[in-house]
Amino acid sequence: MHSVELLQQLDFIKEIDKIKYIQRRTKLFGSDRNENDAEHSWHLAMMTIVLAEHSNEPIDVLKVVKMVLIHDIVEIDAGDTFIYDENKDHSNTDEERAAANRIFGLLPKKQSEELIGIWEEFEAGKTQEAKFARAMDRLEPLLQNASNNGGTWKEFDVSYNKVYEKKQVIEDGSTIIWDLAKGIINDSVEKGILSKD
Amino acid sequence: MHSVELLQQLDFIKEIDKIKYIQRRTKLFGSDRNENDAEHSWHLAMMTIVLAEHSNEPIDVLKVVKMVLIHDIVEIDAGDTFIYDENKDHSNTDEERAAANRIFGLLPKKQSEELIGIWEEFEAGKTQEAKFARAMDRLEPLLQNASNNGGTWKEFDVSYNKVYEKKQVIEDGSTIIWDLAKGIINDSVEKGILSKD
Repeated sequence: MHSVELLQQLDFIKEIDKIKYIQRRTKLFGSDRNENDAEHSWHLAMMTIVLAEHSNEPIDVLKVVKMVLIHDIVEIDAGDTFIYDENKDHSNTDEERAAANRIFGLLPKKQSEELIGIWEEFEAGKTQEAKFARAMDRLEPLLQNASNNGGTWKEFDVSYNKVYEKKQVIEDGSTIIWDLAKGIINDSVEKGILSKD
Repeated sequence: MHSVELLQQLDFIKEIDKIKYIQRRTKLFGSDRNENDAEHSWHLAMMTIVLAEHSNEPIDVLKVVKMVLIHDIVEIDAGDTFIYDENKDHSNTDEERAAANRIFGLLPKKQSEELIGIWEEFEAGKTQEAKFARAMDRLEPLLQNASNNGGTWKEFDVSYNKVYEKKQVIEDGSTIIWDLAKGIINDSVEKGILSKD
C-alpha cells in the first residue's frame, strides 16, 4: 500500500527517538538537570537561525540546521563523548561511522547518502557550514557553564587554557561570536568560576 | 564592545532554554516518560527534513523547519494545551500572542518580526508550509500513541472519531502521509488500543 521509501522513513523517525535518552555532561541554563542530545540539537538549530548573520562567510542556513539537528544521532549507538575527556578521541571514530551507516542507512538510499554526507562534512569541519555548526556546538555549553557557576569546568577541574583551546574553533565560524565567547571566558575567570591554573 | 543586537540574540538564546521544562501529555516512543517541547520540536524538524518530499505542493523546507522549531516557544509563558482538552481552545489565544511578543521580542526588531510572522503563519495554517508543519505536529503523537499501547488516547478516553477528526488536517499537508496515518489509526482500532465508541 505505502511505498517502501515511506516505511523506511518511518523506521528512521522511530529509531532516532532514542537520542532523547542520551545524557550530556552539561546542564541546562542555571540548572542542575543534565541536557539530553535532542534538547541540545534543538538549541543549536535555534542558535544557528538566530546567529547565522554573524558567520565569517555567507552560509547555507538549511544545511547548517540539518547538520546540528543530526550531528549527535550517531551517539544512539556510540554514546556521548565528553569534550574534555583526555582518554578518548572525540570525533569520527570507527564506532561513530558504523553508527552513521546503521542509523542513516535506515532511510532510502538517496536520503541516507545525503545525511551521511552532511554528518561527514560536520566532522571534517572544513566548509564554512561545518565551521559555523561547530561554533554553535562549542558556544552552547560555554553559555551553560557560565550560567551554572562553572558547571562542567568546575566539576571536572578543567582549566582556562583547556577551555580557551577547545573554544577557539568558534573563531573559524564567526570572529564576532568568538569575541563574545572570549569575553564570557574572561568574565568567568574574574568571577572565580574558571581557574587560570 | 559587542553590538546591542548580538546581546539581544544571546538573551533570546538563554530564555528559550525554558522550553526544555515544558512537559507534553504524550510519551516518548514505547516509553512512559513524557516528552518535552524541545524534544518534540527537534523531532518535528527531523520529520520535516525526511518527509518534505511527500508534501502536496513544493515547500520552502527551511521555513517549515523554522516553524516547527519555534511553534511551541510561546508555551514558555502560556503552557502546553492538550489537543483533546474540550475546555480550552488550543491555538492562538491572547495569552499565546502576548507570549510570542514578549519572547520573540527579545530579538532585534527584524528577527523578532520574522519569527512572529512565521509563528502566526503556522497558527493560521493557510500556506502549504504551515499545512505541512501542522501535519508533522499531528503525526508525531499519533506514532507515539500507536507505539505506547494507546498512550493518551487510552489515558484520556479519546475515541476513534475524535482522533480521526483531529488528525485529518494531515491530509492538507500530504495525502500520502494521511494515507499512512489512516492505516495506523485503523490498525490501532484493530489492536484494541483505540476505541470506536
